[in-house]
Amino acid sequence: MIKTTYIKFKKKDDFSEWYIDVLMKSELIDYSPVKGFMVLRPNGYEIWEFIKNKIDAQLKKSGHKNAFLPTLIPENLLSKEKEHFIGFNPEVFWVSKHGNTTNRLALRPTSETLAYFFYAKWIKSWRDLPLKINFWNTALRAEIKSTKPFLRTSEFLWQEGHTAHANKKEAEEEVYSILTIYKQIIETELAIPVIVGKKTNSEKFVGAIYTTTIEAIMPDGKALQMGTSHLLGQNFSKPFEIKFLDKNNMENYVWQTSWGVSWRLIGAMIMIHGDDRGIVLPPRISPIQIIIIPIYYSLAESKKILEKSHEIQNILTKQGIRTHIDDRDNVTPGFKFNYWELRGVPLRIEIGPKDIVKERFVIMDRHTKEKKYMVMNELENNVTNILTKIQNDMFALAQKKFHKKIIYIKDYKQFKIYIKNGNLISSPLCSNEKCELKIKEETGADIRVIPLYSKVDSDKKCIYCNSESDQLPIFGYGY
Amino acid sequence: MIKTTYIKFKKKDDFSEWYIDVLMKSELIDYSPVKGFMVLRPNGYEIWEFIKNKIDAQLKKSGHKNAFLPTLIPENLLSKEKEHFIGFNPEVFWVSKHGNTTNRLALRPTSETLAYFFYAKWIKSWRDLPLKINFWNTALRAEIKSTKPFLRTSEFLWQEGHTAHANKKEAEEEVYSILTIYKQIIETELAIPVIVGKKTNSEKFVGAIYTTTIEAIMPDGKALQMGTSHLLGQNFSKPFEIKFLDKNNMENYVWQTSWGVSWRLIGAMIMIHGDDRGIVLPPRISPIQIIIIPIYYSLAESKKILEKSHEIQNILTKQGIRTHIDDRDNVTPGFKFNYWELRGVPLRIEIGPKDIVKERFVIMDRHTKEKKYMVMNELENNVTNILTKIQNDMFALAQKKFHKKIIYIKDYKQFKIYIKNGNLISSPLCSNEKCELKIKEETGADIRVIPLYSKVDSDKKCIYCNSESDQLPIFGYGY
Repeated sequence: MIKTTYIKFKKKDDFSEWYIDVLMKSELIDYSPVKGFMVLRPNGYEIWEFIKNKIDAQLKKSGHKNAFLPTLIPENLLSKEKEHFIGFNPEVFWVSKHGNTTNRLALRPTSETLAYFFYAKWIKSWRDLPLKINFWNTALRAEIKSTKPFLRTSEFLWQEGHTAHANKKEAEEEVYSILTIYKQIIETELAIPVIVGKKTNSEKFVGAIYTTTIEAIMPDGKALQMGTSHLLGQNFSKPFEIKFLDKNNMENYVWQTSWGVSWRLIGAMIMIHGDDRGIVLPPRISPIQIIIIPIYYSLAESKKILEKSHEIQNILTKQGIRTHIDDRDNVTPGFKFNYWELRGVPLRIEIGPKDIVKERFVIMDRHTKEKKYMVMNELENNVTNILTKIQNDMFALAQKKFHKKIIYIKDYKQFKIYIKNGNLISSPLCSNEKCELKIKEETGADIRVIPLYSKVDSDKKCIYCNSESDQLPIFGYGY
Repeated sequence: MIKTTYIKFKKKDDFSEWYIDVLMKSELIDYSPVKGFMVLRPNGYEIWEFIKNKIDAQLKKSGHKNAFLPTLIPENLLSKEKEHFIGFNPEVFWVSKHGNTTNRLALRPTSETLAYFFYAKWIKSWRDLPLKINFWNTALRAEIKSTKPFLRTSEFLWQEGHTAHANKKEAEEEVYSILTIYKQIIETELAIPVIVGKKTNSEKFVGAIYTTTIEAIMPDGKALQMGTSHLLGQNFSKPFEIKFLDKNNMENYVWQTSWGVSWRLIGAMIMIHGDDRGIVLPPRISPIQIIIIPIYYSLAESKKILEKSHEIQNILTKQGIRTHIDDRDNVTPGFKFNYWELRGVPLRIEIGPKDIVKERFVIMDRHTKEKKYMVMNELENNVTNILTKIQNDMFALAQKKFHKKIIYIKDYKQFKIYIKNGNLISSPLCSNEKCELKIKEETGADIRVIPLYSKVDSDKKCIYCNSESDQLPIFGYGY
């Protein structure tokens, strides 16, 4: 008999250790022999496929098309937009083959430069705009900081979108429409509450006019950037000469955006929802939504119970619910309970000999760990509702914790105390970049996001210099 | 007004030039600034997504799961199986970053070695078998020969499957079950006839016990390897120490397979079905199956005709047919006809002012270029059948050409003549490898495939040495 696997660490006590333990034991990931690289095992990849499909459907619906760009980018393209190159250069892996030292080949850290080499060829007239292309690939960045699975790895699965538009207005609409798609999927599917807003100038994407961001808060109080959408303006179209003839036959440079989310979303979901038994998946994103466990102790019993299990499965499948019957006969029911709890399946149905007689079964909610009986004829009408309720409850609980972590503070002494205690701080700030930098220098905290639509009253003063404030950013420590 | 794009070359006269011209003008691909690398544009990627989804569904149905492995493989893993390393070494791109000269990092030429490093950790007991994992990624190989889009590029999109089994029998069953999946998809979806069989020892995958292959014949008479499925046996499990405890608690090495198909399938489909107007897509794999073109010359007409176009579209969509209405008002109907012919949409519906009155429309079959009228009330019941007929006709035509190209020859003088004329030759051969190598030396042709179930009569003699023959391989020139 194989042994049951338990999580060794408590989420509350050893958050970092717990996170790794949970990822490894639920068989989501493994470490590559190359430092900083990670393998996504079938259990993890299946979750990624669900997330990917949701995003892909939304992008296609809004007129984006997928394409493929090679992994290798020649240095003369990567360096064409100066700020961009300076920003990425320290992290780039270079290919040594071919010995072409005057024009080395970079392993894609992001594809702006290679994509825009082609956009300059593909775009000729206003008829070719908007051009909205998305790429599902990996980015490679030699990480200098310590790595963490899903959150910071030297290679990561992601999507990167690159669009070109006839004018600034349309480009800005794209930036925000993507932000809305991201927010909707992260909140509705992954059940993670987020703040959307802008990054400051010092935190924006290298080469962008501005960067909008989606920030979530992890249980240890650190902020996690879940996705970004950049207005590149004409910063790339000018060096790359991406020009088009407008309806008046005048030549113009296009306006551009780029944006992306990565497998980091999986890491955030595990951190937010996981518990001391393992990962907990929201029903909408869980590859298996209901695990059915037949319980029997003799061959005589098994036939009827397996039959009933399949009957239950058929009813659920007809409703579009994703189920699996764990009919392994070489492990105990207790082993199976633990096995599927570890792997985060949101709902469990147990069915034993007594249940058959009483035309009922047990359902157990992974999220609350509550067990109760359900009679067979409730099955058809109730299970979809239960799954919806679990999804909503998981989001509501996450939201409650989320709001507790954001504290409004207008006194700098207080700020310095609260920022150390695993909180995010909302404080008024003036427009002088020096104050932002001074606060970072003195506390280590940076501005995670300037929330959209957050207004400051006219009597509010900058938390650092006390001059007139015009923004209400959120400070915190990031991953 | 923008100009109409035509294919400059004739398929019959300048096959190579025609192929490139068609790929570029239908906007399937573009060339990377790095030699040998290729970009797949949205039109091309959409086709790849259709092929990928068909394969992925079949693999999942047969119990395979997807996962992700990093791009970089340390040299000490890549070199663990000696033949494998010797075979791939000349083509490997190496990363120079990090300056670790004792253990360089290779850009994945194929993932056997990295995958099996993990399989050794993941597989412990018979309960973990079979392990059947597939990876959708790219492989990178610095090509020494001249490159050709889709057929030979320094990076290509593909899937690579890697499985581990408890015994040889199960591994061999896997090898052939994959071969069957590939054959079925290539013939049924891509409408390309193929021969399945084995490669000879000298042509097998480096590190395999044997390689099974799927070969198609291109219009220029060259054979194209469409996919391979290898029995690796215990050649990798021994150096990688992939062992499991069987039911008797005895330790055994696993038996393995690996297999893959790439975007080469797209290249083959274009070569086989394309014509002087552009590419021709089989209906089952075409992102758009029917292009609807409203024809009007005044605003007054346009409303009714657009309404009718949407009515037609709605009827077709309900039947699961993928359609698009080209309602651009800045190009002529003639421009649109050419535009969608170039891009290979299998069926066109044209609807003009007179058609409205007569409750009819024109349909045009891209494959035969035949036009005819159809009355509105035939639409609902007939279009699916027409699409099925086009799919079947395309396959039948390809099959006719295919069979013509394979010639049975038992005289070596004749062999040398016919092999130069763009044919594949089926000839009896003895089991001495020298004859195979001599023929290659003297004619340049190699054995593409030893077809499954091809038997030789007992009186047949080896075409080269006249000794007793026991196999009937197919010789040809390959891409």
